[in-house]
Amino acid sequence: MDLPSPDTRTRILDAAAALLRRHGPDKLTVLDVAKRLGMSHGNVYRHFPSKQALRAAVAEEWLSDVTAPLALIAAGEAAPPSRLREWLAALAVIKRRKVLEDPEMFAGFHRVASESPEVIAAHVAHLVDQIAAILAAGKADGTLPGVAAPQDDARAVLVATARFHHPDLVRDGGNAATAEAELSRITTLLLRGLGATAVA
Amino acid sequence: MDLPSPDTRTRILDAAAALLRRHGPDKLTVLDVAKRLGMSHGNVYRHFPSKQALRAAVAEEWLSDVTAPLALIAAGEAAPPSRLREWLAALAVIKRRKVLEDPEMFAGFHRVASESPEVIAAHVAHLVDQIAAILAAGKADGTLPGVAAPQDDARAVLVATARFHHPDLVRDGGNAATAEAELSRITTLLLRGLGATAVA
Repeated sequence: MDLPSPDTRTRILDAAAALLRRHGPDKLTVLDVAKRLGMSHGNVYRHFPSKQALRAAVAEEWLSDVTAPLALIAAGEAAPPSRLREWLAALAVIKRRKVLEDPEMFAGFHRVASESPEVIAAHVAHLVDQIAAILAAGKADGTLPGVAAPQDDARAVLVATARFHHPDLVRDGGNAATAEAELSRITTLLLRGLGATAVA
Repeated sequence: MDLPSPDTRTRILDAAAALLRRHGPDKLTVLDVAKRLGMSHGNVYRHFPSKQALRAAVAEEWLSDVTAPLALIAAGEAAPPSRLREWLAALAVIKRRKVLEDPEMFAGFHRVASESPEVIAAHVAHLVDQIAAILAAGKADGTLPGVAAPQDDARAVLVATARFHHPDLVRDGGNAATAEAELSRITTLLLRGLGATAVA
Protein backbone atom coordinates (compact mmCIF):
# COMPACT_ATOMS: atom_id res chain seq x y z
CA MET A 1 0.00 0.00 0.00
CA ASP A 2 1.35 3.39 -0.93
CA LEU A 3 1.60 6.16 1.61
CA PRO A 4 -0.34 9.22 0.50
CA SER A 5 2.05 11.69 -1.05
CA PRO A 6 2.46 14.85 1.00
CA ASP A 7 0.84 17.93 -0.42
CA THR A 8 2.96 20.56 -2.10
CA ARG A 9 2.84 22.99 0.82
CA THR A 10 4.23 20.35 3.18
CA ARG A 11 6.91 19.35 0.68
CA ILE A 12 7.99 22.98 0.37
CA LEU A 13 8.16 23.43 4.15
CA ASP A 14 10.16 20.22 4.58
CA ALA A 15 12.62 21.27 1.89
CA ALA A 16 12.93 24.72 3.45
CA ALA A 17 13.63 23.25 6.90
CA ALA A 18 16.23 20.91 5.37
CA LEU A 19 17.95 23.84 3.66
CA LEU A 20 17.98 25.79 6.91
CA ARG A 21 19.47 22.85 8.80
CA ARG A 22 22.23 22.29 6.26
CA HIS A 23 23.13 25.73 5.06
CA GLY A 24 21.86 28.18 7.67
CA PRO A 25 19.30 30.97 7.38
CA ASP A 26 20.82 32.77 4.37
CA LYS A 27 19.98 29.96 1.96
CA LEU A 28 16.34 29.94 2.94
CA THR A 29 14.83 31.71 -0.10
CA VAL A 30 12.05 30.86 -2.52
CA LEU A 31 14.59 30.29 -5.30
CA ASP A 32 16.74 27.92 -3.24
CA VAL A 33 13.72 25.91 -2.16
CA ALA A 34 12.35 25.72 -5.72
CA LYS A 35 15.74 24.53 -6.96
CA ARG A 36 15.95 21.87 -4.28
CA LEU A 37 12.54 20.52 -5.24
CA GLY A 38 13.05 20.82 -9.01
CA MET A 39 10.00 23.05 -9.05
CA SER A 40 9.35 26.41 -10.71
CA HIS A 41 9.56 29.28 -8.28
CA GLY A 42 6.11 30.34 -9.46
CA ASN A 43 4.86 27.12 -7.92
CA VAL A 44 6.46 27.95 -4.56
CA TYR A 45 5.10 31.50 -4.71
CA ARG A 46 1.60 30.06 -5.19
CA HIS A 47 1.85 28.68 -1.64
CA PHE A 48 4.05 31.36 -0.07
CA PRO A 49 3.63 34.80 -1.60
CA SER A 50 7.03 36.05 -0.42
CA LYS A 51 10.33 34.93 1.04
CA GLN A 52 9.18 36.38 4.33
CA ALA A 53 5.95 34.34 4.26
CA LEU A 54 7.98 31.20 3.58
CA ARG A 55 10.39 31.93 6.43
CA ALA A 56 7.52 32.74 8.82
CA ALA A 57 5.86 29.40 7.98
CA VAL A 58 9.12 27.54 8.65
CA ALA A 59 9.41 29.30 12.03
CA GLU A 60 5.81 28.42 12.83
CA GLU A 61 6.39 24.72 12.10
CA TRP A 62 9.54 24.77 14.20
CA LEU A 63 7.79 26.35 17.17
CA SER A 64 4.93 23.87 16.94
CA ASP A 65 7.48 21.17 17.90
CA VAL A 66 7.36 22.87 21.31
CA THR A 67 3.65 23.47 21.66
CA ALA A 68 2.30 20.18 20.26
CA PRO A 69 3.56 17.81 23.01
CA LEU A 70 2.65 20.38 25.68
CA ALA A 71 -0.92 20.58 24.37
CA LEU A 72 -1.34 16.87 25.18
CA ILE A 73 -0.27 17.49 28.78
CA ALA A 74 -2.49 20.57 29.12
CA ALA A 75 -5.51 18.58 27.91
CA GLY A 76 -4.65 15.62 30.17
CA GLU A 77 -6.53 14.06 33.06
CA ALA A 78 -4.01 14.68 35.87
CA ALA A 79 -5.09 16.92 38.75
CA PRO A 80 -4.42 20.54 37.73
CA PRO A 81 -1.53 21.15 40.20
CA SER A 82 0.35 18.03 38.99
CA ARG A 83 -0.57 18.86 35.43
CA LEU A 84 0.96 22.32 35.72
CA ARG A 85 4.11 20.87 37.25
CA GLU A 86 4.40 18.28 34.48
CA TRP A 87 3.75 20.91 31.80
CA LEU A 88 6.46 23.28 33.12
CA ALA A 89 8.99 20.46 33.48
CA ALA A 90 8.26 19.28 29.91
CA LEU A 91 8.64 22.80 28.51
CA ALA A 92 12.03 23.08 30.23
CA VAL A 93 13.22 19.73 28.88
CA ILE A 94 12.06 20.49 25.33
CA LYS A 95 13.66 23.94 25.32
CA ARG A 96 16.89 22.73 26.85
CA ARG A 97 17.18 20.03 24.21
CA LYS A 98 16.40 22.44 21.39
CA VAL A 99 18.83 25.10 22.56
CA LEU A 100 21.76 22.97 23.68
CA GLU A 101 21.83 19.87 21.46
CA ASP A 102 22.71 21.74 18.29
CA PRO A 103 23.32 25.38 19.16
CA GLU A 104 24.18 26.39 15.60
CA MET A 105 20.99 24.95 14.18
CA PHE A 106 19.04 26.48 17.02
CA ALA A 107 20.56 29.88 16.26
CA GLY A 108 19.52 29.53 12.61
CA PHE A 109 15.88 28.73 13.34
CA HIS A 110 15.83 31.32 16.11
CA ARG A 111 17.04 34.01 13.70
CA VAL A 112 14.36 33.09 11.18
CA ALA A 113 11.70 33.15 13.90
CA SER A 114 12.94 36.53 15.17
CA GLU A 115 12.18 38.03 11.76
CA SER A 116 8.47 37.32 12.37
CA PRO A 117 7.49 38.86 15.71
CA GLU A 118 3.85 37.97 15.01
CA VAL A 119 4.78 34.28 14.82
CA ILE A 120 6.61 34.48 18.14
CA ALA A 121 3.74 36.38 19.74
CA ALA A 122 1.29 33.71 18.56
CA HIS A 123 3.60 31.03 19.97
CA VAL A 124 3.72 32.72 23.39
CA ALA A 125 -0.06 33.18 23.28
CA HIS A 126 -0.46 29.42 22.66
CA LEU A 127 1.68 28.67 25.69
CA VAL A 128 -0.25 31.12 27.87
CA ASP A 129 -3.56 29.62 26.68
CA GLN A 130 -2.41 26.13 27.63
CA ILE A 131 -1.40 27.21 31.13
CA ALA A 132 -4.63 29.20 31.47
CA ALA A 133 -6.65 26.07 30.62
CA ILE A 134 -4.89 24.18 33.43
CA LEU A 135 -5.46 27.06 35.87
CA ALA A 136 -9.13 27.35 34.90
CA ALA A 137 -9.53 23.61 35.53
CA GLY A 138 -7.91 24.04 38.96
CA LYS A 139 -10.17 26.96 39.77
CA ALA A 140 -13.21 24.93 38.72
CA ASP A 141 -12.36 21.77 40.70
CA GLY A 142 -11.06 23.67 43.74
CA THR A 143 -7.44 22.43 43.58
CA LEU A 144 -6.17 25.92 42.67
CA PRO A 145 -8.59 28.22 44.51
CA GLY A 146 -6.16 31.17 44.43
CA VAL A 147 -6.45 31.59 40.65
CA ALA A 148 -7.91 35.04 40.05
CA ALA A 149 -7.78 35.64 36.31
CA PRO A 150 -6.54 32.52 34.48
CA GLN A 151 -4.98 34.42 31.56
CA ASP A 152 -3.11 36.92 33.76
CA ASP A 153 -2.01 34.25 36.21
CA ALA A 154 -0.91 32.05 33.30
CA ARG A 155 1.24 34.84 31.92
CA ALA A 156 2.76 35.34 35.40
CA VAL A 157 3.59 31.62 35.60
CA LEU A 158 5.23 31.68 32.18
CA VAL A 159 7.26 34.81 32.97
CA ALA A 160 8.32 33.47 36.40
CA THR A 161 9.81 30.41 34.71
CA ALA A 162 11.57 32.33 31.89
CA ARG A 163 14.94 31.12 33.19
CA PHE A 164 13.98 27.61 32.02
CA HIS A 165 12.60 28.38 28.57
CA HIS A 166 13.96 31.73 27.35
CA PRO A 167 16.68 30.90 24.79
CA ASP A 168 19.31 33.31 26.20
CA LEU A 169 18.86 32.06 29.75
CA VAL A 170 18.69 28.37 28.85
CA ARG A 171 21.99 28.75 27.00
CA ASP A 172 23.77 30.21 30.05
CA GLY A 173 21.93 28.00 32.46
CA GLY A 174 24.52 25.67 33.96
CA ASN A 175 23.85 22.03 34.65
CA ALA A 176 20.55 20.25 34.13
CA ALA A 177 20.13 18.82 37.64
CA THR A 178 20.47 22.22 39.32
CA ALA A 179 18.04 23.76 36.85
CA GLU A 180 15.55 20.96 37.47
CA ALA A 181 15.69 21.40 41.25
CA GLU A 182 15.35 25.17 40.88
CA LEU A 183 12.34 24.87 38.58
CA SER A 184 10.71 22.43 40.98
CA ARG A 185 11.13 24.86 43.88
CA ILE A 186 9.73 27.77 41.89
CA THR A 187 6.82 25.62 40.72
CA THR A 188 6.04 24.78 44.34
CA LEU A 189 6.02 28.46 45.31
CA LEU A 190 3.76 29.33 42.37
CA LEU A 191 1.35 26.45 43.05
CA ARG A 192 1.06 27.47 46.71
CA GLY A 193 0.64 31.05 45.54
CA LEU A 194 -2.29 29.84 43.44
CA GLY A 195 -3.84 28.25 46.49
CA ALA A 196 -2.75 24.63 46.11
CA THR A 197 -2.45 22.82 49.42
CA ALA A 198 -0.33 19.80 50.24
CA VAL A 199 2.21 20.70 47.55
CA ALA A 200 5.58 19.04 48.10
CA MET B 1 37.86 73.40 54.79
CA ASP B 2 39.45 71.14 52.20
CA LEU B 3 37.81 67.88 51.24
CA PRO B 4 40.13 64.97 51.89
CA SER B 5 41.78 63.95 48.60
CA PRO B 6 40.69 60.54 47.40
CA ASP B 7 43.23 57.77 47.73
CA THR B 8 45.10 56.59 44.68
CA ARG B 9 43.06 53.40 44.28
CA THR B 10 39.83 55.41 44.11
CA ARG B 11 41.34 57.90 41.66
CA ILE B 12 42.44 55.04 39.41
CA LEU B 13 38.99 53.45 39.50
CA ASP B 14 37.27 56.76 38.75
CA ALA B 15 39.59 57.42 35.81
CA ALA B 16 39.04 53.88 34.52
CA ALA B 17 35.25 54.25 34.70
CA ALA B 18 35.48 57.62 32.91
CA LEU B 19 37.57 56.05 30.13
CA LEU B 20 35.07 53.23 29.76
CA ARG B 21 32.17 55.68 29.57
CA ARG B 22 33.82 57.81 26.92
CA HIS B 23 35.75 55.38 24.77
CA GLY B 24 34.25 51.95 25.40
CA PRO B 25 35.82 48.81 26.82
CA ASP B 26 38.84 48.64 24.51
CA LYS B 27 40.49 51.73 25.99
CA LEU B 28 40.31 50.36 29.51
CA THR B 29 43.94 49.34 30.00
CA VAL B 30 46.54 50.11 32.65
CA LEU B 31 48.48 52.28 30.17
CA ASP B 32 45.44 54.33 29.18
CA VAL B 33 44.48 54.90 32.80
CA ALA B 34 48.03 55.87 33.79
CA LYS B 35 48.17 58.32 30.88
CA ARG B 36 44.86 59.89 31.86
CA LEU B 37 46.08 60.42 35.42
CA GLY B 38 49.58 61.55 34.44
CA MET B 39 50.89 58.68 36.53
CA SER B 40 53.51 56.05 35.85
CA HIS B 41 51.99 52.71 34.93
CA GLY B 42 54.10 51.15 37.69
CA ASN B 43 52.00 53.17 40.10
CA VAL B 44 48.77 51.77 38.66
CA TYR B 45 50.19 48.25 38.72
CA ARG B 46 50.94 48.69 42.43
CA HIS B 47 47.15 48.81 43.03
CA PHE B 48 46.00 46.55 40.21
CA PRO B 49 48.51 43.83 39.29
CA SER B 50 47.06 43.30 35.79
CA LYS B 51 44.71 44.77 33.24
CA GLN B 52 42.26 42.03 34.16
CA ALA B 53 42.40 42.96 37.86
CA LEU B 54 41.74 46.59 36.96
CA ARG B 55 38.79 45.67 34.74
CA ALA B 56 37.36 43.33 37.39
CA ALA B 57 37.54 46.13 39.98
CA VAL B 58 35.72 48.52 37.62
CA ALA B 59 32.99 45.91 37.11
CA GLU B 60 32.72 45.39 40.85
CA GLU B 61 32.23 49.11 41.46
CA TRP B 62 29.65 49.28 38.71
CA LEU B 63 27.65 46.36 40.12
CA SER B 64 27.75 47.84 43.61
CA ASP B 65 25.57 50.67 42.24
CA VAL B 66 22.87 48.01 42.12
CA THR B 67 23.47 46.27 45.43
CA ALA B 68 24.12 49.30 47.65
CA PRO B 69 20.62 50.87 47.56
CA LEU B 70 19.03 47.43 47.83
CA ALA B 71 21.05 46.65 50.96
CA LEU B 72 19.33 49.58 52.67
CA ILE B 73 15.91 48.14 51.85
CA ALA B 74 16.90 44.63 52.92
CA ALA B 75 18.11 45.96 56.28
CA GLY B 76 14.99 48.11 56.73
CA GLU B 77 12.22 47.98 59.29
CA ALA B 78 9.24 47.22 57.03
CA ALA B 79 7.39 43.94 57.59
CA PRO B 80 9.24 41.23 55.64
CA PRO B 81 6.52 40.68 52.99
CA SER B 82 6.36 44.41 52.14
CA ARG B 83 10.13 44.62 52.37
CA LEU B 84 10.52 41.83 49.78
CA ARG B 85 8.02 43.53 47.47
CA GLU B 86 9.84 46.86 47.80
CA TRP B 87 13.21 45.21 47.24
CA LEU B 88 12.10 43.42 44.05
CA ALA B 89 10.45 46.55 42.67
CA ALA B 90 13.60 48.59 43.38
CA LEU B 91 15.84 46.01 41.70
CA ALA B 92 13.61 46.14 38.59
CA VAL B 93 13.69 49.95 38.48
CA ILE B 94 17.48 50.11 38.94
CA LYS B 95 18.14 47.48 36.28
CA ARG B 96 15.70 48.97 33.82
CA ARG B 97 17.35 52.37 34.19
CA LYS B 98 20.84 50.92 33.84
CA VAL B 99 20.00 48.84 30.77
CA LEU B 100 17.75 51.23 28.87
CA GLU B 101 18.95 54.76 29.63
CA ASP B 102 22.26 54.41 27.86
CA PRO B 103 22.35 51.02 26.12
CA GLU B 104 25.80 51.57 24.63
CA MET B 105 27.38 52.41 27.96
CA PHE B 106 25.55 49.52 29.56
CA ALA B 107 26.91 47.17 26.90
CA GLY B 108 30.45 48.41 27.62
CA PHE B 109 30.28 47.84 31.37
CA HIS B 110 28.42 44.57 30.82
CA ARG B 111 31.19 43.32 28.54
CA VAL B 112 33.85 44.21 31.10
CA ALA B 113 31.86 42.47 33.85
CA SER B 114 31.37 39.37 31.67
CA GLU B 115 35.15 38.94 31.55
CA SER B 116 35.13 38.30 35.32
CA PRO B 117 32.62 35.53 36.05
CA GLU B 118 33.76 35.51 39.69
CA VAL B 119 32.73 39.17 40.04
CA ILE B 120 29.28 38.40 38.60
CA ALA B 121 28.92 35.33 40.81
CA ALA B 122 29.77 37.43 43.89
CA HIS B 123 27.21 40.03 42.78
CA VAL B 124 24.46 37.41 42.43
CA ALA B 125 25.46 35.95 45.81
CA HIS B 126 25.07 39.42 47.40
CA LEU B 127 21.58 39.71 45.95
CA VAL B 128 20.62 36.22 47.15
CA ASP B 129 21.99 37.02 50.63
CA GLN B 130 19.88 40.16 50.82
CA ILE B 131 16.70 38.29 49.88
CA ALA B 132 17.61 35.47 52.27
CA ALA B 133 17.93 38.00 55.12
CA ILE B 134 14.40 39.25 54.41
CA LEU B 135 13.05 35.69 54.23
CA ALA B 136 14.80 34.71 57.46
CA ALA B 137 13.23 37.73 59.16
CA GLY B 138 9.81 36.67 57.86
CA LYS B 139 10.34 33.14 59.08
CA ALA B 140 11.37 34.45 62.50
CA ASP B 141 8.46 36.86 62.97
CA GLY B 142 5.88 34.52 61.42
CA THR B 143 4.93 36.70 58.45
CA LEU B 144 6.50 34.23 55.99
CA PRO B 145 5.94 30.87 57.66
CA GLY B 146 6.35 28.93 54.40
CA VAL B 147 10.06 29.74 54.14
CA ALA B 148 11.90 26.42 54.28
CA ALA B 149 15.56 27.19 53.57
CA PRO B 150 16.12 30.95 53.25
CA GLN B 151 19.07 30.66 50.85
CA ASP B 152 17.34 28.21 48.49
CA ASP B 153 14.07 30.11 48.61
CA ALA B 154 15.93 33.37 48.03
CA ARG B 155 17.57 31.95 44.92
CA ALA B 156 14.15 30.77 43.70
CA VAL B 157 12.73 34.28 44.19
CA LEU B 158 15.63 35.84 42.29
CA VAL B 159 15.36 33.35 39.41
CA ALA B 160 11.56 33.70 39.22
CA THR B 161 11.97 37.45 38.68
CA ALA B 162 14.79 37.17 36.09
CA ARG B 163 12.54 38.77 33.49
CA PHE B 164 12.83 42.04 35.45
CA HIS B 165 16.57 42.10 36.12
CA HIS B 166 18.38 39.91 33.59
CA PRO B 167 19.98 42.29 31.07
CA ASP B 168 18.81 40.40 27.94
CA LEU B 169 15.22 40.21 29.14
CA VAL B 170 15.06 43.77 30.45
CA ARG B 171 16.23 45.00 27.04
CA ASP B 172 13.45 43.17 25.17
CA GLY B 173 10.92 43.79 27.88
CA GLY B 174 8.32 46.13 26.43
CA ASN B 175 6.77 48.97 28.35
CA ALA B 176 7.43 49.82 31.98
CA ALA B 177 3.82 49.81 33.21
CA THR B 178 3.14 46.29 31.91
CA ALA B 179 6.38 45.04 33.41
CA GLU B 180 5.51 46.64 36.76
CA ALA B 181 2.07 45.01 36.86
CA GLU B 182 3.57 41.66 35.89
CA LEU B 183 6.25 41.84 38.56
CA SER B 184 3.63 42.76 41.16
CA ARG B 185 1.52 39.72 40.24
CA ILE B 186 4.51 37.37 40.38
CA THR B 187 5.59 38.88 43.71
CA THR B 188 2.12 38.20 45.09
CA LEU B 189 2.26 34.55 43.97
CA LEU B 190 5.73 34.12 45.50
CA LEU B 191 4.76 35.79 48.79
CA ARG B 192 1.69 33.57 49.09
CA GLY B 193 3.89 30.62 48.18
CA LEU B 194 6.11 31.58 51.11
CA GLY B 195 3.11 31.55 53.42
CA ALA B 196 2.22 35.23 53.57
CA THR B 197 -1.45 35.82 54.25
CA ALA B 198 -3.51 38.86 53.33
CA VAL B 199 -1.26 39.68 50.38
CA ALA B 200 -2.96 41.94 47.86
